[in-house]
Amino acid sequence: MMDHTLLELLEQEQGNYLSGETISKAMNVSRTAVWKQIRKLEERGYVIEASRKLGYRLVSKPDNLSPEKLSELLQTNRFGRSLRLLDVVDSTQNEAQRWAEDGAPEGAIVIAEQQLGGRGRMGRSWVSPYTKGIWMSLIMRPSTPIHFAPQLTLLTAVALCRSLRKSTGLEIGIKWPNDLLISGKKISGILLESAAEDERIKYVIAGTGISVNLDISDYPEELLERATSLSIQAGRRFSREQVIADFLLEWEQLYDLYLKDGFGAIQTLWEALAVTLHQEVTVQTPQGQLEGRATGLHESGALELLLSSGELRLVFSGEMGQPSSAQ
Amino acid sequence: MMDHTLLELLEQEQGNYLSGETISKAMNVSRTAVWKQIRKLEERGYVIEASRKLGYRLVSKPDNLSPEKLSELLQTNRFGRSLRLLDVVDSTQNEAQRWAEDGAPEGAIVIAEQQLGGRGRMGRSWVSPYTKGIWMSLIMRPSTPIHFAPQLTLLTAVALCRSLRKSTGLEIGIKWPNDLLISGKKISGILLESAAEDERIKYVIAGTGISVNLDISDYPEELLERATSLSIQAGRRFSREQVIADFLLEWEQLYDLYLKDGFGAIQTLWEALAVTLHQEVTVQTPQGQLEGRATGLHESGALELLLSSGELRLVFSGEMGQPSSAQ
Repeated sequence: MMDHTLLELLEQEQGNYLSGETISKAMNVSRTAVWKQIRKLEERGYVIEASRKLGYRLVSKPDNLSPEKLSELLQTNRFGRSLRLLDVVDSTQNEAQRWAEDGAPEGAIVIAEQQLGGRGRMGRSWVSPYTKGIWMSLIMRPSTPIHFAPQLTLLTAVALCRSLRKSTGLEIGIKWPNDLLISGKKISGILLESAAEDERIKYVIAGTGISVNLDISDYPEELLERATSLSIQAGRRFSREQVIADFLLEWEQLYDLYLKDGFGAIQTLWEALAVTLHQEVTVQTPQGQLEGRATGLHESGALELLLSSGELRLVFSGEMGQPSSAQ
Repeated sequence: MMDHTLLELLEQEQGNYLSGETISKAMNVSRTAVWKQIRKLEERGYVIEASRKLGYRLVSKPDNLSPEKLSELLQTNRFGRSLRLLDVVDSTQNEAQRWAEDGAPEGAIVIAEQQLGGRGRMGRSWVSPYTKGIWMSLIMRPSTPIHFAPQLTLLTAVALCRSLRKSTGLEIGIKWPNDLLISGKKISGILLESAAEDERIKYVIAGTGISVNLDISDYPEELLERATSLSIQAGRRFSREQVIADFLLEWEQLYDLYLKDGFGAIQTLWEALAVTLHQEVTVQTPQGQLEGRATGLHESGALELLLSSGELRLVFSGEMGQPSSAQ
């Protein structure tokens, strides 16, 4: 209730400064309490300018996702048609997993404005600040055997890469297996978690973190070398609803194509977008580091690596380049 | 507390009859209440003979699993070294899944004396009466990619088939993919549930239901045509601790061989035990029924089926013969 009052006070000023003392008196709390409330608003995505002399002024409000706007833009049949839009969650993956166990239909999505325990590959954490990105999990129930699950990871990377190129005009490429890069910096993460019963997939939960409108100040210093956002790269902000709608449409179309015709077309699209093919690369695998020339994608989802010994090795699991954080 | 008293009364008689009236007076409850308590004891595995004239007598006590005896017999390094022995659970799979999420080590097992919601393949139920069988789930954490998960199902079937043949001397064979049969009747069920993160397996939970000492009266009439137990087939009872210890040893040895050398040896062992190879078979698949000659096992775990058209088809998922219950 209190920060609502503070918000009302700031909004009444329409962008002009309000002194800490005035606020403190109006709310009947200490100036330290006012400062704490200001910090809370900032965490929720409000941009507030503070001046020792003049006080506080509201610069901008958070750009919350509008389900109505998303619904208007959505052109899919199934993907995104069931939606859980949450404010703050531990991880959209966990929420989607509970929903999947409870019988969520294929295409159901969970989106959160903020994740407190966003998970990246290999248990790493993922920076997902309030209203700045797209933190989304989608539930798939393909009839393909578990054998083919890794293909869905590559399909998701292709769908996201193609849709983001369309939405933003930026030159985005794929680093094996599923990182999206602009100028060598990562702008999204994909994590597919699957549950199977014998060879049958029960469900796959595809988690995607897309750094849409993050500012440089949203990243820890040490991450800026290898992580970036669409807004930093393009110099402008994007409608998250539009980015989501574009992505879901591309994704559903490729998924339907995959279920109908298999992996062939997806493999071709993946190879066309890959920035790491036909180059000398190092890959960290669970069995140690490998060096060689990335020659192509195997239909199993494995990377085909031509070692200097002349041996063609299939790499099922690993990470290109140096080990780093997820982002 | 009450059935403990009833049990004490019956035990004092050392197999002789005790009249319902005597029990009723001693326990200060109605004769209907006595009858209800008798039913409860029977559900817990006590065999009690009832005579209208003479009353009740205790014929035998349940043969509860002894963790001490199991521990003495166990010759493994990891499999079975962490144990949760439960009396009655919904399903050992659910319990093992919770334990796996909480960080259970590889080889950890959950055994229950009875399952109330035992699960078979395709969501079917599984008859698992008190102390009569082995209802067990084992947690594996292989470093192989999810791509190879179906191989673990076949490995489990091979390990169980080989160990049961040794333990019982019975002629037991494998029906693709993982049913064990004696004279065409099913004596065990295997269900592997796996959780993966991208291509990495987080854990696999291998559930096995082994019908060890079930009597004919334990089965619904309609199941007897296609299900049986080791004791019915051999005409004698088996020590469940010994059966478990034999199985875990064989299983761990094959698993270690698999992690070291791959699927080749397992595939050969599977084919040697398969009762459905080199025969005309029908297979119910998610895409419809197929007929053909089962010619072998593909390294992916798929059945190689030679159709009458001459086409060699890989069948990843399905069931041989007519659709039936899990048991």
